[in-house]
Amino acid sequence: MKQVYLDYSATTPVKKEVLEEMIPFFSENFGNPSSAYTIGYKSRGAVDLARQRVASLVGAKEKEIFFTSSGTEANNWAIFGVCDAMKDKGNHIITTKIEHPAVLNHCEFLEKRGYKVTYLDVQKDGIVDPKALEDAITKDVILISIMLINNEIGTIQPLKELCQIAKKHNILFHTDAVQALGNIPLDVKELGIDLMSISAHKIYGPKGVGALYIKDGVKISNFMHGGSQEHAKRAGTENLTGIVGFGKAAEIAKEHLMEHIDRLTELRDYFIDRVMLKIPNVALNGHRSLRHPGNANLRFDYIEGESMLLFLDVKGISVSTGSACASEETTPSHVLTALQIPIEQIHSSVRFTLGDFTTMEDLDYTIEELAVIVEKLRQISPISK
Amino acid sequence: MKQVYLDYSATTPVKKEVLEEMIPFFSENFGNPSSAYTIGYKSRGAVDLARQRVASLVGAKEKEIFFTSSGTEANNWAIFGVCDAMKDKGNHIITTKIEHPAVLNHCEFLEKRGYKVTYLDVQKDGIVDPKALEDAITKDVILISIMLINNEIGTIQPLKELCQIAKKHNILFHTDAVQALGNIPLDVKELGIDLMSISAHKIYGPKGVGALYIKDGVKISNFMHGGSQEHAKRAGTENLTGIVGFGKAAEIAKEHLMEHIDRLTELRDYFIDRVMLKIPNVALNGHRSLRHPGNANLRFDYIEGESMLLFLDVKGISVSTGSACASEETTPSHVLTALQIPIEQIHSSVRFTLGDFTTMEDLDYTIEELAVIVEKLRQISPISK
Repeated sequence: MKQVYLDYSATTPVKKEVLEEMIPFFSENFGNPSSAYTIGYKSRGAVDLARQRVASLVGAKEKEIFFTSSGTEANNWAIFGVCDAMKDKGNHIITTKIEHPAVLNHCEFLEKRGYKVTYLDVQKDGIVDPKALEDAITKDVILISIMLINNEIGTIQPLKELCQIAKKHNILFHTDAVQALGNIPLDVKELGIDLMSISAHKIYGPKGVGALYIKDGVKISNFMHGGSQEHAKRAGTENLTGIVGFGKAAEIAKEHLMEHIDRLTELRDYFIDRVMLKIPNVALNGHRSLRHPGNANLRFDYIEGESMLLFLDVKGISVSTGSACASEETTPSHVLTALQIPIEQIHSSVRFTLGDFTTMEDLDYTIEELAVIVEKLRQISPISK
Repeated sequence: MKQVYLDYSATTPVKKEVLEEMIPFFSENFGNPSSAYTIGYKSRGAVDLARQRVASLVGAKEKEIFFTSSGTEANNWAIFGVCDAMKDKGNHIITTKIEHPAVLNHCEFLEKRGYKVTYLDVQKDGIVDPKALEDAITKDVILISIMLINNEIGTIQPLKELCQIAKKHNILFHTDAVQALGNIPLDVKELGIDLMSISAHKIYGPKGVGALYIKDGVKISNFMHGGSQEHAKRAGTENLTGIVGFGKAAEIAKEHLMEHIDRLTELRDYFIDRVMLKIPNVALNGHRSLRHPGNANLRFDYIEGESMLLFLDVKGISVSTGSACASEETTPSHVLTALQIPIEQIHSSVRFTLGDFTTMEDLDYTIEELAVIVEKLRQISPISK
């Protein structure tokens, strides 16, 4: 049976060139990068090269990139680290209602421990209104955390404008750029970001490695305490092969960025247009153009997204109804809820995310199967007319 | 040139069978283990199998094993998580002066935030006196954290006895068992441990993955907030290949445990005896028999350990003067300091750690080169007689 993977925002396969670069570091050049002898230095060199490649993809200096175990750890570190370091200055965080759980749940954790958190509403297309941010600022605000691209609906925020507001008030700005990395041009200096979370496994690198960009001079407490790895800012033996893989994936992403964006955008638009043409009563969640080039989050009236997912899976097509991180939960998507989409339409939403191995044939096959499944499900739906 | 790796306590190469088991999960079965479709379920199954294998190595139930990014993360989580969950009960931690920095530095971090920490002295052989632990207990103690095997001197603690003291006073007991895993028989139920940190890359698995054993029923706050991975106790996309590798390494370790211990013990004793026979003024740091089967931490009077390390490296021999995590630091080893070894003897100490690929020939070559280097260095030493 044909296999069509359309969940690239959940995770991506490791590219051949990436795995090839990683292999020698498992069993041959396996030295601990912190060890003071030749095979340790070789590993250290490989980590340095990876740091250079990741820094280069986002316009950062090498010394501003700190490897972590995931985007989640980077998000946790950014929020915890700034709040701890700045606790004498204030106790107020501003974020949005559509952040990833790694941001939201750490904020809730801090809320129970005396911090104040403002969760900004977003507009119906998922965009944060800069004026709403401006209005929420108080003298106690120490951190603003707003994601660059939303993982469910793919909406791209006007980050430069939001950063400028933060800067005007002398407040640190963090962004979760896990979905943005490698999918839009991204330059931390140009945007004016202070802290940024990224992850390897969303850009065809391995799972288990991420990074936090910390702008030179930004004061942040450590999250992981122990050895003096990562310039004594993030303890734990370096995930050598993971870091090497992240570096190679970043190099490839940089090299092919515009080509990747153009190709994905074309496929995405083809997919959205064709689905809407072939299937009645379908709508797009999120902004139509300020959007991740591979994201098509669609709602199919009168249908349960979960049922659609199962029927598509039977046909070899992998999609999701929200983020993989929340797939065990049955509560409606907090992102779609924030868009003020009625609950039955939230439950009828399915996220299709395209990537480098997606072909036109994959999409045609998916559209065909989708039309059949939608018709079948609507026939048995109690709420369909 | 001959290459002899004698720093297995810093890290180990990934075994061939381990890497082979990992490979399919990079680019083929790469699904997110939290995704609700076939390729996600395949990944979930692989994670479950790994959890079963790791649990089996330490006598735990599957649901008591929570994967982390490292032993360091497991140590941080255990200490932070218990302190946060038990903050209404007390604010006092008891640990020892010879713990890994991942424990010590997190304790110091908490000390600055209102917690009280007692750092127990150890005896001259590195053993914690159970009576000293008993005497340090106050009504505010919420956690005792004592490592099972020390990473520098290889000393094995009388953990069962120490756990019993904790149990008598109804205090949670955590152990850093990173160096113990796969190197001594280890059963959490038999020892009476509540929390235990372990790591894959010390048992021929990949770097970037560890685990925390949390005894069923133990109350602990989350450290990594976000998605609902690891039964909603540790967020972040699972390090699929890392976890698969950890599982396979654990399976191999269990299968060959006694053979591994016997072989290493024989090599270690041969090495220690021969070095002492061939080279005058050499002494062993740590307990002679209650000791990691592959650890030989030796001090060579009148010699700088750092110089020895460099000269050995030139001959293709990799050793260390302490833990890799502290190799960038120039301060004397906190472990050897706690053994009340005079500072010049601390600086003359070198750690040799043997592993599964160490051969008798490797040791003979090392002893030969060592004798030459020691003689040369002693000739130029200003403190040698």
